[in-house]
Amino acid sequence: MEAIERTILDHGKVVLLDVFGSDERIAEAARVSYQQGTKKTRSDRALLRYLMRHRHTSPFEMAEVLFYLKVPITVARQLVRHRTANLNEVSGRYSELPNEMYIPEVDQCGPQSTQNNQGRAPVTNEIQSRHAQQSMRFASDAAYDAYDSLLNVHFVSREIARGVLPLHTYTELYWKCDLHNFFHFLKLRMDTHAQYEIRVMAAAMYDAVTPHFPLSCKAWEDYILNAHTFSKLDLVLLSRVLRGEIPTLTDAQVIGQSEREYTDFMAKLSELRATER
Amino acid sequence: MEAIERTILDHGKVVLLDVFGSDERIAEAARVSYQQGTKKTRSDRALLRYLMRHRHTSPFEMAEVLFYLKVPITVARQLVRHRTANLNEVSGRYSELPNEMYIPEVDQCGPQSTQNNQGRAPVTNEIQSRHAQQSMRFASDAAYDAYDSLLNVHFVSREIARGVLPLHTYTELYWKCDLHNFFHFLKLRMDTHAQYEIRVMAAAMYDAVTPHFPLSCKAWEDYILNAHTFSKLDLVLLSRVLRGEIPTLTDAQVIGQSEREYTDFMAKLSELRATER
Amino acid sequence: MEAIERTILDHGKVVLLDVFGSDERIAEAARVSYQQGTKKTRSDRALLRYLMRHRHTSPFEMAEVLFYLKVPITVARQLVRHRTANLNEVSGRYSELPNEMYIPEVDQCGPQSTQNNQGRAPVTNEIQSRHAQQSMRFASDAAYDAYDSLLNVHFVSREIARGVLPLHTYTELYWKCDLHNFFHFLKLRMDTHAQYEIRVMAAAMYDAVTPHFPLSCKAWEDYILNAHTFSKLDLVLLSRVLRGEIPTLTDAQVIGQSEREYTDFMAKLSELRATER
Amino acid sequence: MEAIERTILDHGKVVLLDVFGSDERIAEAARVSYQQGTKKTRSDRALLRYLMRHRHTSPFEMAEVLFYLKVPITVARQLVRHRTANLNEVSGRYSELPNEMYIPEVDQCGPQSTQNNQGRAPVTNEIQSRHAQQSMRFASDAAYDAYDSLLNVHFVSREIARGVLPLHTYTELYWKCDLHNFFHFLKLRMDTHAQYEIRVMAAAMYDAVTPHFPLSCKAWEDYILNAHTFSKLDLVLLSRVLRGEIPTLTDAQVIGQSEREYTDFMAKLSELRATER
Repeated sequence: MEAIERTILDHGKVVLLDVFGSDERIAEAARVSYQQGTKKTRSDRALLRYLMRHRHTSPFEMAEVLFYLKVPITVARQLVRHRTANLNEVSGRYSELPNEMYIPEVDQCGPQSTQNNQGRAPVTNEIQSRHAQQSMRFASDAAYDAYDSLLNVHFVSREIARGVLPLHTYTELYWKCDLHNFFHFLKLRMDTHAQYEIRVMAAAMYDAVTPHFPLSCKAWEDYILNAHTFSKLDLVLLSRVLRGEIPTLTDAQVIGQSEREYTDFMAKLSELRATER
Repeated sequence: MEAIERTILDHGKVVLLDVFGSDERIAEAARVSYQQGTKKTRSDRALLRYLMRHRHTSPFEMAEVLFYLKVPITVARQLVRHRTANLNEVSGRYSELPNEMYIPEVDQCGPQSTQNNQGRAPVTNEIQSRHAQQSMRFASDAAYDAYDSLLNVHFVSREIARGVLPLHTYTELYWKCDLHNFFHFLKLRMDTHAQYEIRVMAAAMYDAVTPHFPLSCKAWEDYILNAHTFSKLDLVLLSRVLRGEIPTLTDAQVIGQSEREYTDFMAKLSELRATER
Repeated sequence: MEAIERTILDHGKVVLLDVFGSDERIAEAARVSYQQGTKKTRSDRALLRYLMRHRHTSPFEMAEVLFYLKVPITVARQLVRHRTANLNEVSGRYSELPNEMYIPEVDQCGPQSTQNNQGRAPVTNEIQSRHAQQSMRFASDAAYDAYDSLLNVHFVSREIARGVLPLHTYTELYWKCDLHNFFHFLKLRMDTHAQYEIRVMAAAMYDAVTPHFPLSCKAWEDYILNAHTFSKLDLVLLSRVLRGEIPTLTDAQVIGQSEREYTDFMAKLSELRATER
Repeated sequence: MEAIERTILDHGKVVLLDVFGSDERIAEAARVSYQQGTKKTRSDRALLRYLMRHRHTSPFEMAEVLFYLKVPITVARQLVRHRTANLNEVSGRYSELPNEMYIPEVDQCGPQSTQNNQGRAPVTNEIQSRHAQQSMRFASDAAYDAYDSLLNVHFVSREIARGVLPLHTYTELYWKCDLHNFFHFLKLRMDTHAQYEIRVMAAAMYDAVTPHFPLSCKAWEDYILNAHTFSKLDLVLLSRVLRGEIPTLTDAQVIGQSEREYTDFMAKLSELRATER
C-alpha cells in the first residue's frame, strides 16, 4: 500500500505504513469459532456488527496497523502506556536529536481549565497567550543551545546531554497495534478529556485507518465510540425520567451520586432530548 | 501470498495463511532507533544478526505470522499458554464437533520415559503398543458415540454434551503471533523436552515461515536455537577443563551442582569435543 | 489470611489463597498521579468511585488475587483465555490424573437453547435429562477405565494415555490476576451468556474477594457490572422515547438496527419502566 | 513489612513498599503441576533451582514486588518499556511539578564512548566535565524558571507548561511487577550496556528484593545473571579450543563471525582461563 503522510501540530507526522488483514479476514477468523454450522449465514457486515456489539473482541485482534509517528515526547509518553502495542523509538543514546520542538499555537496557550483538572481552557487573554508562546520558544531554543554545547563544546555523551532537552522535543517511532487494541486506544485518546495534542494524533491515525476497515470502523463508531454507558445509579434516574419525573440533585444524592455525576447525567439527558428534533 | 497446507499427525493441519512484514521491514524499524546517525552503515543481514545477538527484540515484534491450525486439544492447550499470541478457536458451544480424534502411530505408544518425567520412551514391545493404539481407537469411538447420542437421542445442549469428548479430539484455530514471540514459542516447543505432537506442529510452522524471513531465521538459529547457555557453575567447571583438568562429580557437587547438572555438562563437553573432528 | 474453601459443581473447589493490596493501597497508588496538589482532598471511597467511573484502570492493577481452583477442563479452557492472569496447572504429562469427572446435575442436562446459540435451555423432559446424565456417567467411567488400562496394562506414557480422558475431567490450578483484569474477567464470565459452569465459578470467586476490597467492588458493581450501554442507534431510539414516542421495529430498521437489537432495546426499556415502581 | 528507603543519584529514591508471596509460595505453585506424584520429593531450594535452570518461569509469576520510585524522566521512559509491569506515575497535567532535576556527578559527565555507541566513557578532562555539570545545572534552572513563569505569570495550563521542563526532571511512580518479569527486567537493566542511571536503580531494587526471595534470587544469579550463552558459532570455536587449538580471527570469519563477535569470544575465554587460578 502507498503510505500517505499527514502533518499534525507544527512538526508532527502520522504515516500509516501498512495494514495487515481486512474486514473479510476478521469475519473469516470469527467464523472459525462457529465452524460450518453457521458459516455464511450472515454477511460480513452483520457479523462484524454482531461481534462489536457483543464485545467478541478476539477476531479484531487478527488485524494490525503499523504507523510511523513523529510527536512531542509528552505525547509519546502517553502512547507508550498502551502495552499491547509494539514500538521502536529513536534513541537519544545512539543519535544526536535535531532541533525540533513543539511550540503550541497561540490558541492552545490558554489557562488551566477550571472544570477539568487535567486540561486547558480556551484562550481569554490573547496577548498573554502570545507572550506565553514566545516564552516557550525562547526556552526551547535555550535548551537546545545547552544540548548542543554539551555535545560539541563540553563533549558530554549523548545519553547525558539529552537530559537538558525539553519534554516538547519531537521523537519518532514505529508503532504497531492490533485493531481491537487500536480501537481501545482511540476510545481513550479521542475522548474530550485526553490532551489536545494526542487527540489530534489519534484523529489523524483513525482517519488513515478507516478506508482499510470500513465495516469494522463503522461498527466501532456505532457500538463503542458514540455509545453511552449509564451507571446503575444513572439508570435509576433514567427510570424516573421515563415515568415523567424530573430528578433533582437531592434525588441523585439520596441514591449515592455526586453532584458531578448528576450534572453529567442531566447534560446527557438534554443532549438526548435535543437529538434530531 | 498462497497458503500451503502441511499435514501433521493423522488429521492435523498447519497452514501459514499470511505474513506481515519482512526482514527489510524489521531492519527498517530498528534503524528508527539509530536515526540518521548510523543509517545504512551496515547491511540488513549484519543488522538483524546484531539485534538477535544482543537480544534487541522489539524490531522483531514488527512482523507477524498468521496460521490456521488443526490439532488435538492437548496440543491446543499448550499453544494457548503463549499469551502474546491472538487466537480464535472453534467453539463446541456453537458447533457440533466432527468425529476426528488423534490416534497416535504405534511408534508413539511407547512406555513412560524413565529419564524424562514428562515424556515417552521408544517402543520396546511392539505388540503391546499396537494393543494400546487399538484401545485408544476404541475409546475414542465410544466417546464419540456417547457425544452423538447425547446430542441426537438425549437432546442435550452442545456445551454440555462435548464434556464426554476425549482430549485427543481435533480442534481448529486461527493463531497469530509477532515474530519475536513466535521465535520464543519455537524455542520452547521445538525443544526435545516438549511433547512430540507439539514439536511436530512447531517444526511445520517454522518450516513454513523460514522462506519469508530468511535472514531473521538464520540469525535466530545461530544465536538462540543452537546456542548453549552455561550456568555460573558450568562456567567454573569449564574453566577447569580449559586448564586441562577433568572435573569429577565431586568437584561439581562441591560447587553446588546436582548430579543431573554435572551429567548434562559432561554430555555437552563430549558433544563439543566431537564437533567437526 | 485464612483461606476458605468453597465447593462448586460436584467436585469443584474455589479457594482464595491470598490477596495483595487493599482499597487503601489502590487509592494511594492513584494519589501518586495527582501528587500533593490534590492529596487527601477526597475520601478513598469517593476517589475509587471516581476512578472506576472514568475508567482510570491502572490503580486497580496494583492489587492481586490468588486462587486455587479445581474445575472441569472445559472451564479451565475458558479461564486460560484471560491472558493477563498467571497460572500453574496440573500436568497430565507428570502426574496420573485421578478419576474425577464433572457430571452435571439433571437440571443442567436440558436441550440446546433456541434463543442462545451457545447455551442450554431449561429441562423440559426430566426423564430424558436423567437418561442423559446417566449416559454421561457411563461414558466418563468407560473413558477413565480406558485411561487406567493404557497406563497400567498397556504401559503407555501418561502424556499419550491422557488423550482418552474426557473434557469434563477435573483439573487443578493456581490462578493469579490483578484486580482490574479480575473485574474484566468477571464482567465476561458472570454474564448470562457465559456457560453456567464458569458463571458458578466466577460468582464464587467474586464472593470470596468482595470482603477484601469492599469499596472497589461496590464501585465496580455500580459503574460496570450493573451499568448499561446504549449504542449510538439505541440513543436515537431513546431520544424518541424521551419525546413521548414509541419506536417501532420499522423505526429501528430505518436507522440500521437488526430485529434483535430492537427487541433488546425494548426489553431494556420495559425493565427500566418497571424499576422501583 | 517495613518499607526501607534507598537514595540513588542526587534526588532519586527506591522504596520496596510490599512483596506478595515467597520462595515457599512459588514452590507450592510449581508443585500443583506435578501433583501428588512428585510432591515433597525434593526441597524448595532444589525445586526452585530446577525451575530456573529449565526456564519453567510461570511459578515465579505467582510472586509480586511493589515499588515507589523517584527517578529522572529519562529513566522512567526506559522503565515503562517493560510492559508486563503495572504503573502509576505522577501526572504533570494534574500537578505542578517541583524543581527537582537530575544533575549528574562530575564523574558521569564523560565523553561519548568510542566502543559503545549508546554509552559514556570515563572522564578524562575533569575541568571539562565540571563545566559540563555546571552547564547542565544552569540549563535546568533556566528551564524551571520558564516553567514557573508559564504557570504563574503567563497563566498557561499545566499540561502545556510542562513541555519546557527538561528530560532530567524527576518523576515519581508506583511500579509493580511479578518476580519472573522483574528478573527479566533486571537482566536487561543491570547489564553493562544499560545506562548508568537505570543500572543504579535496578541494583537498588534487586538489593531490596533479595532478602524476601533468597532461594529464587540465588538460583537466578547462578542460572541467568551470571550464566553465559555461547552462540552456535562460538561453540564451533570453543570445540577447537577444547582440542588445543587457538582460533584466529580468520577462523572466526570463515564460519561467519564478525570481528566484534570474535573479540568478545576471546575475551570470555581469557576470563574463563583466569577464573579461580
